[in-house]
Amino acid sequence: MTKKNAFYAQSGGVTAVINASAAGVIEAARENSDTIGALYAGRDGIVGALTEDLIDTSAEDAATVAALRHTPAGAFGSARYKLKGLDENRVEYERLIEVFKAHNIGYFFYNGGGDSADTCEKISHLSDEMGYPIQAIHIPKTMDNDLPHTDCSPGFGSVAKYTAVSIREAGYDLHSMCKTSTKVFILEVMGRHAGWTAAAGGLAAEFEGDAPHILLFPEIEFDRAKFLAKVDDTVKQYGFCTIVASEGVEIGTDFTRGDGREADAFGHVQLGGVAPKIAELIKSHLGYKYHYAIADYLMRAARHIASATDVEQAYAVGRAAVEYAVAGKSGVMVTIERESDEPYRWSIGEASLQEVANVEKFMPRDFISEDGFHITDTARRYLKPLIAGESYPPYVDGLPDYARLKNQAVPKKLETGFEI
Amino acid sequence: MTKKNAFYAQSGGVTAVINASAAGVIEAARENSDTIGALYAGRDGIVGALTEDLIDTSAEDAATVAALRHTPAGAFGSARYKLKGLDENRVEYERLIEVFKAHNIGYFFYNGGGDSADTCEKISHLSDEMGYPIQAIHIPKTMDNDLPHTDCSPGFGSVAKYTAVSIREAGYDLHSMCKTSTKVFILEVMGRHAGWTAAAGGLAAEFEGDAPHILLFPEIEFDRAKFLAKVDDTVKQYGFCTIVASEGVEIGTDFTRGDGREADAFGHVQLGGVAPKIAELIKSHLGYKYHYAIADYLMRAARHIASATDVEQAYAVGRAAVEYAVAGKSGVMVTIERESDEPYRWSIGEASLQEVANVEKFMPRDFISEDGFHITDTARRYLKPLIAGESYPPYVDGLPDYARLKNQAVPKKLETGFEI
Repeated sequence: MTKKNAFYAQSGGVTAVINASAAGVIEAARENSDTIGALYAGRDGIVGALTEDLIDTSAEDAATVAALRHTPAGAFGSARYKLKGLDENRVEYERLIEVFKAHNIGYFFYNGGGDSADTCEKISHLSDEMGYPIQAIHIPKTMDNDLPHTDCSPGFGSVAKYTAVSIREAGYDLHSMCKTSTKVFILEVMGRHAGWTAAAGGLAAEFEGDAPHILLFPEIEFDRAKFLAKVDDTVKQYGFCTIVASEGVEIGTDFTRGDGREADAFGHVQLGGVAPKIAELIKSHLGYKYHYAIADYLMRAARHIASATDVEQAYAVGRAAVEYAVAGKSGVMVTIERESDEPYRWSIGEASLQEVANVEKFMPRDFISEDGFHITDTARRYLKPLIAGESYPPYVDGLPDYARLKNQAVPKKLETGFEI
Repeated sequence: MTKKNAFYAQSGGVTAVINASAAGVIEAARENSDTIGALYAGRDGIVGALTEDLIDTSAEDAATVAALRHTPAGAFGSARYKLKGLDENRVEYERLIEVFKAHNIGYFFYNGGGDSADTCEKISHLSDEMGYPIQAIHIPKTMDNDLPHTDCSPGFGSVAKYTAVSIREAGYDLHSMCKTSTKVFILEVMGRHAGWTAAAGGLAAEFEGDAPHILLFPEIEFDRAKFLAKVDDTVKQYGFCTIVASEGVEIGTDFTRGDGREADAFGHVQLGGVAPKIAELIKSHLGYKYHYAIADYLMRAARHIASATDVEQAYAVGRAAVEYAVAGKSGVMVTIERESDEPYRWSIGEASLQEVANVEKFMPRDFISEDGFHITDTARRYLKPLIAGESYPPYVDGLPDYARLKNQAVPKKLETGFEI
């Protein structure tokens, strides 16, 4: 086998553990230096490949690479940039080949979600369709857990843990104060059109009356009357009600007062997510005092409360991608295969990128309780091992000591630039 | 000294460490059983004293009491309930004396913030003014850090750590993605009219360009043009801008489009805090893509990322309150005295409740940088030790194993009830 260099890029929304995958790729590539030459990372993801802005990962010492395992977000920069089809935008593919050729790149590792799997799949066809030999392997990553053909996606276990821990803590808070203060609390969580992260919040409810009392999934059509009755019953029974709401839930628009617009106490109006809408709905119909939190990026960046299982899997899929490449594979995504729930056992597998690209995996209906407001035991069996274990970063002066990379540029070889 | 029973109550907004103070009180009371008989806790704070709803803390075994050190929120229930002056509502004081007398209570431990210090001060006068002998000691607690005459308030160090950790993590996230995605991120933090929690976020910025880039304090008048210029400069220089905004900041109301009301993409409007207003201000003037998070109760309940210093101090002030009572003191608040910044050394002291009650401590101007957008080295020296150390709760199945108390009621002795 001729020795070729490799390219690695992070893609799409970052997570608490995508850098653990990067660590897996870098360490495995270094161990396979008889097959893989230099490992270059794209600065700002695929944008770095198009603009020939490559990072020389060999400039990072072993300790720094190891520190990526406990560092959130994308150490080389990630991008929201989707390549069009070969027919629609041939010039991008020609540019990629130009850059890959200039830097003798024969391996393409792409670390992302559904859109990225699609890009990776297109790259894997460059050999056949444009005569440039390259092996493309996809490394799964998405906090949304919506990738198909893998039991779970690295990044999800950590937001799941963040959500479950946070709503348990907020539940203790509400329970303390509800006699004379706030009765309803809503935590809005990211997750796009799939309810996986809200479902994970449900793990915090272990005993009768525990928070969260209600989960709102995008998969379930919102029934206002049923929801309000459930909130009211919960407050009457337990004194308070805690809700985890997926950002993708649509609760309708006709409940706000007046023309559907409402100003706050200062006489003007703000943008916001679904939590304030739900709060307003409850306030206007039931009159309960509420508070809400919007987790937003905090949840996907929260490496301080990452799931140890998630960190381990993220690292493993990174390593496996390199091993698959060395074994001659291409056009596949590394997957996590569940072997048993309890004790939890998993192994690494693979799926064809053709089957993965652009498919979203939603929550199965049997993960959601009959009334649509909580998770079932089937869901608990699936979710529970994914949040297991703590993997704390080191701290200095009370703050997590996250890696700071050199991100040294590889000297450019081409005279032409590229406008993205 | 005649042996008397003691009453302990939690008051106001709860924190991640107020139960550590409860553990200190209970353990110290048990060690002083020759002076202090039973220790009763008020169910839902002072409300429990008024309604004779007392909790028998002796029903909790030593392991459960120890577990309070790692359990957030108020284990006995807290209340937002402020006693009026003796002249205005004598009936409440008469009722308290009735309940205290029935249960032979001679010690009153009140665990709260400024309003609670006021209540505690009034109780301390019951001996003089109404002839009922009682010693009242205040145990400081407030995430807002606005209590005077103590170097810091238990509860603050942990929200400070939460804020600094969260904005560091969000900063890593933004930095990864800013080339092709979100440019501005705003974290809204609680803290009422004092900027302490926003200031603590500033600790995360250690090197040039680090998040957070801008802090917004209620103590500094908001200058829109200066703020927008700072955001724009920051994005141009570093590619992104992260902001920690105190909920108490007033940014004005005249910048929104049209009549000051604006609907979202769904044609309607939501309530929200200051973060969405700032986001809208930036979007409308600079056009940058933004995200925002609202931490709300998550921050004050976040025992999972509590400061070890804070936990230790919360426990110590609880113990000290009992020791002061045994030593015959009354009408005082336990304080934390700073002896040195580095190495950080502190000891326990006391302040007269007359000097504490109803005084708010704001950020000194010399803690805030000249341009008003960040903290000074003086502030760093003050804040840094308060977030030091990690104090993780134990976990079971990936979730923190917080204490669940029996909260067994003390049999009522009075025939009369009390309407609150």
